[in-house]
Parts: sequence; structure tokens; C-alpha cells
Amino acid sequence: MLEEIKERVLKANLLLTKYDLVKFTWGNVSEISPDRKYIVIKPSGVDYETMKASDMVVLDMEGNVVEGNLKPSSDTPTHLELYKKYKDIKAITHTHSRWATIMAQAKLDIKVAGTTQADYFYGSIPVTRDMTKEEIEEAYEKNTGKVIIECFEERHISPKDIPAVLVASHGPFAFGVDAKDSVFHSVVLEEVAFMNWHLEVLNKHQAVKQELLDKHYLRKHGANSYYGQN
Amino acid sequence: MLEEIKERVLKANLLLTKYDLVKFTWGNVSEISPDRKYIVIKPSGVDYETMKASDMVVLDMEGNVVEGNLKPSSDTPTHLELYKKYKDIKAITHTHSRWATIMAQAKLDIKVAGTTQADYFYGSIPVTRDMTKEEIEEAYEKNTGKVIIECFEERHISPKDIPAVLVASHGPFAFGVDAKDSVFHSVVLEEVAFMNWHLEVLNKHQAVKQELLDKHYLRKHGANSYYGQN
Amino acid sequence: MLEEIKERVLKANLLLTKYDLVKFTWGNVSEISPDRKYIVIKPSGVDYETMKASDMVVLDMEGNVVEGNLKPSSDTPTHLELYKKYKDIKAITHTHSRWATIMAQAKLDIKVAGTTQADYFYGSIPVTRDMTKEEIEEAYEKNTGKVIIECFEERHISPKDIPAVLVASHGPFAFGVDAKDSVFHSVVLEEVAFMNWHLEVLNKHQAVKQELLDKHYLRKHGANSYYGQN
Amino acid sequence: MLEEIKERVLKANLLLTKYDLVKFTWGNVSEISPDRKYIVIKPSGVDYETMKASDMVVLDMEGNVVEGNLKPSSDTPTHLELYKKYKDIKAITHTHSRWATIMAQAKLDIKVAGTTQADYFYGSIPVTRDMTKEEIEEAYEKNTGKVIIECFEERHISPKDIPAVLVASHGPFAFGVDAKDSVFHSVVLEEVAFMNWHLEVLNKHQAVKQELLDKHYLRKHGANSYYGQN
Repeated sequence: MLEEIKERVLKANLLLTKYDLVKFTWGNVSEISPDRKYIVIKPSGVDYETMKASDMVVLDMEGNVVEGNLKPSSDTPTHLELYKKYKDIKAITHTHSRWATIMAQAKLDIKVAGTTQADYFYGSIPVTRDMTKEEIEEAYEKNTGKVIIECFEERHISPKDIPAVLVASHGPFAFGVDAKDSVFHSVVLEEVAFMNWHLEVLNKHQAVKQELLDKHYLRKHGANSYYGQN
Repeated sequence: MLEEIKERVLKANLLLTKYDLVKFTWGNVSEISPDRKYIVIKPSGVDYETMKASDMVVLDMEGNVVEGNLKPSSDTPTHLELYKKYKDIKAITHTHSRWATIMAQAKLDIKVAGTTQADYFYGSIPVTRDMTKEEIEEAYEKNTGKVIIECFEERHISPKDIPAVLVASHGPFAFGVDAKDSVFHSVVLEEVAFMNWHLEVLNKHQAVKQELLDKHYLRKHGANSYYGQN
Repeated sequence: MLEEIKERVLKANLLLTKYDLVKFTWGNVSEISPDRKYIVIKPSGVDYETMKASDMVVLDMEGNVVEGNLKPSSDTPTHLELYKKYKDIKAITHTHSRWATIMAQAKLDIKVAGTTQADYFYGSIPVTRDMTKEEIEEAYEKNTGKVIIECFEERHISPKDIPAVLVASHGPFAFGVDAKDSVFHSVVLEEVAFMNWHLEVLNKHQAVKQELLDKHYLRKHGANSYYGQN
Repeated sequence: MLEEIKERVLKANLLLTKYDLVKFTWGNVSEISPDRKYIVIKPSGVDYETMKASDMVVLDMEGNVVEGNLKPSSDTPTHLELYKKYKDIKAITHTHSRWATIMAQAKLDIKVAGTTQADYFYGSIPVTRDMTKEEIEEAYEKNTGKVIIECFEERHISPKDIPAVLVASHGPFAFGVDAKDSVFHSVVLEEVAFMNWHLEVLNKHQAVKQELLDKHYLRKHGANSYYGQN
């Protein structure tokens, strides 16, 4: 079942290596079915070089394995929590990419310092609060999803407008309309995390004007966008 | 029409990937016809891996598409503005290359700290002023060209001597005698931006002596140059 | 003798190049035989591109060459000292990888700033004390092993829990259950050294909570681990 | 004439690209004949991808082209000056490699902060003084050689013990027993320049003890060396 999604999820996982976002198996991509009843996710700890589409694991929204011989990514409960909350999230990529992870460890938002970020993120990429002892010790992965949601809710952020988040002391999650798109946002996130770090060190972080953020984000997104071929 | 220029513009766009100056489609190169009546530019948002010479778009100097089935780069009005003003600009490359973009976001000129820059730029590579709300909201891309021109005019800079500029909060534009040459200057710009950032952090930025700038620039450019094979 | 180990040691040495941990011949990997009577180690100063499994050198635990036509790595006495002390060390990788070496030169422990380190190291990766004049001048390589052991002893660290160490003013050694695993830990070490340096510069080094360290380390290691297949 | 040296010089120039020490044609390697009557050097500004051994230029010690159809590197007079002064210099590599060039622009010596440098350089790699207006305007390239010699003389340095130097505001020159060896030292120089910069920023630059410098340098060089296969 969901063979096309398995192919897309496999390919997206392999893109993580192409774009130098992961070492070894340190990443996972998932995508939800159009009816939002199942997700397809990478198996846990399997070598990217030998991974096949048929290794992808299908789960229902309660986290039961519906198809597949391998255990799903240990981060699966985080993915499920996010899919249940946000209809706009159709795919999720999690990595420990270097620059986004540094910012997550430093617990610094990635602020819009230029048009590169404004082209794809309509504001700062937030970092979550620390998780409590209880949240860590019980249902850790599920609670990781919950703190992401809390972070978005408190800041009135939609993952459609800001398709990425940093989990404090951990690393980034990025979202998309399909598996590849969530990897795309992971790459952009890594670029802007890189630039943010370097501006922070120069002590030259200067937020872009709201109208420049509007201009760049809205020329690529929404009703009046004019970038690309239709 | 202009088939040779289309080939050159295509190849120059592909060089952006080779020299690691762009992610995805985040760059564009154009070249003007010898009679300065038409420009050839990359289409907007098309994948570099499948892009063909015939995908390049030909426009007249008012920005009307004269040949080509695809929409031109959304930055086309910036290119046109610069071509109209400066006869010495025969090709333009725009990227969001990491180091030049950081300096553009930090709003710092790239000062001549050594002979690497002096070999190709006869002075600092300037950063433009911020654009106003009005400039951003109306004819943004055209106004981007105008602030570049204003920057060059105010500082009495010719794009022939300083074939690159940083647009504040955005990124670099570089110029050349043909498409490839404008990519060449983008690569040099990225090198010197890299070095400038690292000197800035060390707090060891030391301008070269004027005579060293003269020596290096003039041994490669102008009547008495003696570098290369004639 | 020990042909399979020679193959593993050869392949692990070649991985050092793949993961960009060494320049030229600046690294060495060894593995001990299951009966802990012999070690197999890279020859000294031999080009990686032409190195064969049969070039690997077999030594007994007193450092006598038992098989092989080439001289063993000059760091062999360090390896032997560690194998004699710790049953949990079955393989050793030594490199001058950039980031771990910078931290070794700065004499800074690599502290757990996020889950990437917590996944594989159950605490800080320590840096040894400086060696004395006498330790350097007499039996330097053997004494390098001794200061590593002293460092682990004083801090009550087991190389099973913290499978790497930084030798002050020198560089890293990493351990594993086989040659490949010790390279794996060298790669993780390099990642976390990279992140540590960048946090240090931001002045944003924030230790993870003990419960997060427990969670991540223990979900991958020990009786209740649940990461990977089985 | 000197066909073998031409081959070596060609190959060494191509290594500059392999080791990522140059962009475009920004480097040059030369080697002197055993009788020290001729040098073979890269032509000026020729593309590395099409360069052939027969393009290498042979000059006598007064700088007259003895064989070859192309103009020699514009830095030739610097090379000649150094060959005339030091019998221990048998080959020279000049690049604008990123980290060494940053240190040259910052006018900072590369100090021995660890064993990586101690393995190949018996002390700090010095930076020259600024050149005077007169030195720059008249016989600039020859005078570049002279300030290098002055720097070595004043500090009582032999290029055999410290086979590299930084020319202030310019970049590095490295030396060797043949063309490849001078590239080798350029690579080591780049590594240690990288590490020095990162220690400088941490404010954690700590010189190695003299006995550690002795140990590492002398186990690889001189009568009692014991590294490598004889």
C-alpha cells in the first residue's frame, strides 16, 4: 500500500545525504497519506546505502505498524503528534544538521536577517522551551511533538508560514507539502542557520524590514505570487 | 536568435553549481547582446539539472519577452536597470552565495585586505543603503537596480573597476564582459567575503597600502598589465 | 593470520579518508584479536591509495612484530597500553581531525550540549593533562597511553561509556567494538567538537539536563534500548 | 630539456586543485634542476584543466626563458630570488589558500599549538614585514623574495626547518625537496593556519612545550627519526 509515497519517502531520505544534512542514519523523513489515515516513515537505524522503498514503514495514526518488516524511526511519535495537530503538515524531515543543531543547542531563534529566509519563512524560526524532567522520562518522543505545538501556539505561528522549528538541545524539524518539500525546507533552514550564526558572532544581526519580508515571502507564496513558472 | 549567448548564459548558470555559489535555483545569470538591444536571462525557478539553452529567455530593454516559452527570472528588472546605465556591464550574475550574503546582511563593505581582492577589484566592494518602504512595495526589482546605481554614483565607482556590489539584507550582484566572467567575479567575491568575515572576527582587518592595490590591480588590468598570456 | 581483522583494519583506515578525518597518512586504526593476544595496526606513513590488507602489521602485546613486512604505526605503543588496560576497547582510531584537534589544542573538554553527543557519549569527552618533560622524552608514545588512562581513572570514566578522548596539544583517540565502530565514534566526535567550538564562540554553551542525557544515551545503549532494529 | 621535472611540476600544480588550495589559476609551483642552473615553473594564467607538461616554462637563474612558448608565472622573480639564496629550497609552491591567506592578511605568525605543526615545522611559520612603497613600485616580485629572505634571516630561520612563510597582505609560499613536497607543505600549512585561526578566536592559543615540539619534529626528521618506512 502507498507505494508512491514509499518511493517519495525513500528518495527524500537519500536527499538528506546529497545535501549533506546527515551523517550515517541521523535523519528521518515521513509523509502522510492524502486521507490522513496513515504515515510512511523511514525505519530506525538502517543504512541509507542499502535502504529500499519496501523498507519504509506504514503506520496508522495510533502508531501501529500496518505494513513493513522493520521497526519505524524512534522519532515516529513526534511525527504523529504533529500530523494530528496540523493539516498543513503533509511531510516532516528531522535531522541533526550542523548549523540548525548549533542554533538549537544555543537556544536561539533564527531571525530573518535577509531575503534568503524571507523567501521561504514568513518570520523567525523558533526554538522550543526546554522539556521538563517528566516530559523527558515519560513518552519523550510524543512530548517532543507537544512542545513543538506549544511553541507554535504560543507564538501564533502556522507551520505553513514557518515550515521549521528547532527543538532545544536537540535539533530541527522541517515541514512540507510532500517528503521532498520538507527536505527542501531543511536545506533552506540550514543555510539561514549558517548565516544567523555568522551574523551573531559579528554582532551584526539586523532584522529585515517588515515590508522586505512581505515582499519576498509574498512574491513566492499566496494569491499574488509571481516567482517561478506559474 | 542569440543562440551563442543562450549557450553561454546556460553554461554560466551551471557554473554557479560547480563553484558552490547556489542552492537549488537561487541564482541567475544574464548577458546582453553586442548591440545592447536584447538580454538573455535564465528562466525563473527552473531546475538546473534539466535546464537547456533553449529555455533561456530573450527580452528587449523594456522587459518584453521576445523569445522563449518560460517566464524570465523575477530579478530581470534589476538586470535591465543596470544594463541601461552601464555600458561596461555586459553580463550579470546574482546569487545568494553564503559569505557575500552574510556581508550583505551585516551591511559591511568588503574592504581590500590583501592582494586576492586587489587582483580583481580596484577598491572596496560596497553595500547599498536600505531600500525604503516605497521602493520595496512598488517596482521592487527595478528599484533594486536603482539603489545599486545610486551606491556606485555616490561613491564614484565604475562597475568596470569594482565588478560587484552587495545589496543590503539581500545578496551580491557581480558583473563581467560575458556571462562566464560575471560568474568568475562572483567566485572571487565569495573568496574575499570569506576572508573579510574572518578578519573582522579576529579584529585584524588591515587595509592594504594604496601602492599594493595599484600594483596588483594594474599588473592584471589596463595598458601596462603583464599577467597571463597577452 | 587474522586475515579478517586485517581486512577490517584496512577498510576502517580507508573510511578515515571517506569521512574527511585525515590528510595524507595522518591517522591509524587498530583492532585486537578476540583472545586479546595480538593487535593488527596500519603500517607507518604508507600511502592510503596503495595500502593493501597484507600491509597491515600484526604485533603481540609486547609490541613485537609477529607478521608483516612493514613497520607499524609509530603510535603503536599508545594503542597497546590502552588495550592492556581496558577489555572494553576492541579497536582504536587515532586522527588529527580538524575540530577535535582544535579542542585538544585549546585543552577544552567536549561537553554535552545536545542530543547528538548524548546519543553516543554518556558525558563529556575529556582532555588529558599536559605530559611532563620526562614523559615526552622517554617512551613518549607509551606514556601517551598512560596519560589517557590516568585521565579516565581520575574522572571515573569507562571507555565503554565515553569512547573517545583528547590528548592535550595533540589530538583525538576513539574506541569501538571493532575497527569500523572506532571510526564511527571518530566521526561523531568530530561533529560534536565542531558544535562545541561554535557554541563556545557564541558564549552559549548550555549543558543538557541529566535526564535528557540519560534518555538519549539509554535509548541506544544497554538493557532497555529501543533504537535501531532489535 | 628537464622533461621529468616538467612532469613533476605539472602534477604538483594539479595537486593544488585536488587539495583545494587554489581557485582558477591562483597558484604556481616550480622546481629547480639538480645543478641549480634552471628552474621549471607554471606558465602565467593558463587553465589547469588544459595545461600540459610541455607548457611548463624553463628559465635560467637570470630569468631568461630557455624553453617554452608561454610566459612564465608573474611570480617567477620571487621564486628565483629564493632559489639563489637557499640551497635547501628545491621547489616552491605559492597559493592564495584561504586560511594561510587570512593569517597573512591578519599579519599573524602561525604558532605551534599542537603536534600537527610540530610534525613538519620546527617552530612558528613567520609573516614578513610590510613592503615599502619603493619595494612595491620597483621590481615588486623580486622584492617579495627579498622580504622573505630578510624575515628568515632576522629570525635565524632555515627554510629547511620551517618550509613555509606568509607574505604580509598577500599569501603563503611553501618549500620542499621536490615539487610535490612543496605542495605537501602547503597542505600542512593550510591545516595549521585553520587551527590557529580557530584557537585565536577562542582566545585559547597555547604554545606547545619545547620538548613536545622537539619530540614530534625529530621523530620525523634528522638522524634519529623513526617515523615511516625508513
